[in-house]
Amino acid sequence: MHVIHSVHEMHNWVFMLKKSGKKIGFVPTMGYLHKGHLELLKLGRGQCDVLVASIFVNPTQFAPGEDYNGYPRDLKRDMELAQWAEVDCLFLPDPAEIYPPGYRTFIEVESLSENLCGAFRPGHFRGVATVVAKLFNIVAPDAAFFGEKDAQQLLIIRKMVEDLNFPVKVVGCPTVRESDGLAMSSRNVYLADEERAQATALHRSLLKAKEMVAGGETDAKKVLAAMREVLSEAPAVQVEYIQAVDVATLQDVSRIVGKVLIAMAVHVGKARLIDNIMLDTEVRGDAAKTAEMHAPH
Amino acid sequence: MHVIHSVHEMHNWVFMLKKSGKKIGFVPTMGYLHKGHLELLKLGRGQCDVLVASIFVNPTQFAPGEDYNGYPRDLKRDMELAQWAEVDCLFLPDPAEIYPPGYRTFIEVESLSENLCGAFRPGHFRGVATVVAKLFNIVAPDAAFFGEKDAQQLLIIRKMVEDLNFPVKVVGCPTVRESDGLAMSSRNVYLADEERAQATALHRSLLKAKEMVAGGETDAKKVLAAMREVLSEAPAVQVEYIQAVDVATLQDVSRIVGKVLIAMAVHVGKARLIDNIMLDTEVRGDAAKTAEMHAPH
Repeated sequence: MHVIHSVHEMHNWVFMLKKSGKKIGFVPTMGYLHKGHLELLKLGRGQCDVLVASIFVNPTQFAPGEDYNGYPRDLKRDMELAQWAEVDCLFLPDPAEIYPPGYRTFIEVESLSENLCGAFRPGHFRGVATVVAKLFNIVAPDAAFFGEKDAQQLLIIRKMVEDLNFPVKVVGCPTVRESDGLAMSSRNVYLADEERAQATALHRSLLKAKEMVAGGETDAKKVLAAMREVLSEAPAVQVEYIQAVDVATLQDVSRIVGKVLIAMAVHVGKARLIDNIMLDTEVRGDAAKTAEMHAPH
Repeated sequence: MHVIHSVHEMHNWVFMLKKSGKKIGFVPTMGYLHKGHLELLKLGRGQCDVLVASIFVNPTQFAPGEDYNGYPRDLKRDMELAQWAEVDCLFLPDPAEIYPPGYRTFIEVESLSENLCGAFRPGHFRGVATVVAKLFNIVAPDAAFFGEKDAQQLLIIRKMVEDLNFPVKVVGCPTVRESDGLAMSSRNVYLADEERAQATALHRSLLKAKEMVAGGETDAKKVLAAMREVLSEAPAVQVEYIQAVDVATLQDVSRIVGKVLIAMAVHVGKARLIDNIMLDTEVRGDAAKTAEMHAPH
């Protein structure tokens, strides 16, 4: 496994590969790898000739007061896991390599960045879009792999790639969960035992929504209220938002019809956790079968 | 000469070339080609294996009320000139190909976009940065060629390329002038005869600045006042701004020391014209020798 720290070296390495016609798969991460990341790497490994992963805790996507400094890091373990996942090249830039002094260029995917997490994390998706564009220019992947757990992020990246004409195929991968339903997240490490037990309420509330919509309920207010009720049984879980939004626009919907994303963010102790479910009432058969997240066009 | 209208076809064409290791040179234009463009094409032709030019009057870089609709167009003549300049591929997208419905991603190069033309053309450089990034992703050039007449544009594009890690070499080319000093511009066609005669005052005022700085004058206020005096002799020329700015930051300077850009925009009849001169008082010998515009680092 190559380990590359500089943009310059990465550009050179990629340039050689491109000339040989190799198809590059790319999994950008913030490290502290979990099974969700490993699924992304597995998918990339299967679909591409060369697999590149990056580990970079991106400062510009943390709002002031968030957990940038405390974000969990374990490079030694991550490198072992990357090796195990047959990563060909691990890109490990320093923050100063990505944002040198005088840095001042930012990418905005307008309106998609404003609702849901965007409303609570000012500048977050600007930071995400910007660093992903930079990494795409540095790694020049043919395909890049992102988890559906970060649904808004995935939709914003798809839109950016489409709008800015990046020659990159964006592949979304289903959320990987613990056996009790908790979505895999590097931030789960923040949870104390009792908080960890109560955090299963997120997935239970999403299953409740799925069940109601499958039963014919289309009133978003009723569905969201029932979800809040499920969550209220877990007092450690403090809801930041629970919303039902149109998949293409990420604007709130009052009726759950067609492709709707139900997304939530909660605080549990020190951890801010997010989770979501995609519903598609137009899928034949089971009316509320969860659908894979497609590009909104 | 290939003529390509769609992003998809351009991506495919470029992908083939990249595999064969060809070096792609790119000259993005808004058409209505003049000798300045031809110099860019000549430079690109000399430095690269394959020469791509684009003609696209970019709507997002025109502020409301500007001359987007009236911007001069002559595709037949442009195609003849491109052929003559040995362009291999001409990219001629429709506006809807570049900005399909629902388009919402924009690039900001902060602070560099706010002074000079940026102060008078809201959103202009956001539109420029965005379309250039898109064209870079579509054409995947190894080198791209821009005129120094659009000095602020060139500096912003250099900064964007550096910040977003585009693997593109940005080459600036000296302003090409008519024999009487008027900088070549597609917008010169707007000038009536008497306006055209008076428009030579722009270059005369820049030469006045050069002469004063060569003579040891470092007070920006005095230099700019002398330039205004030159311009006042041409009553058709209405000054929008004349400023002396630091080349790296584009912030106003009070003393002309080191690398300083003196830039101006004026209205002459229907036409808004810009011109500039780069001074470098640290160049050995002639203290105010005009310097080639280098990246500000």
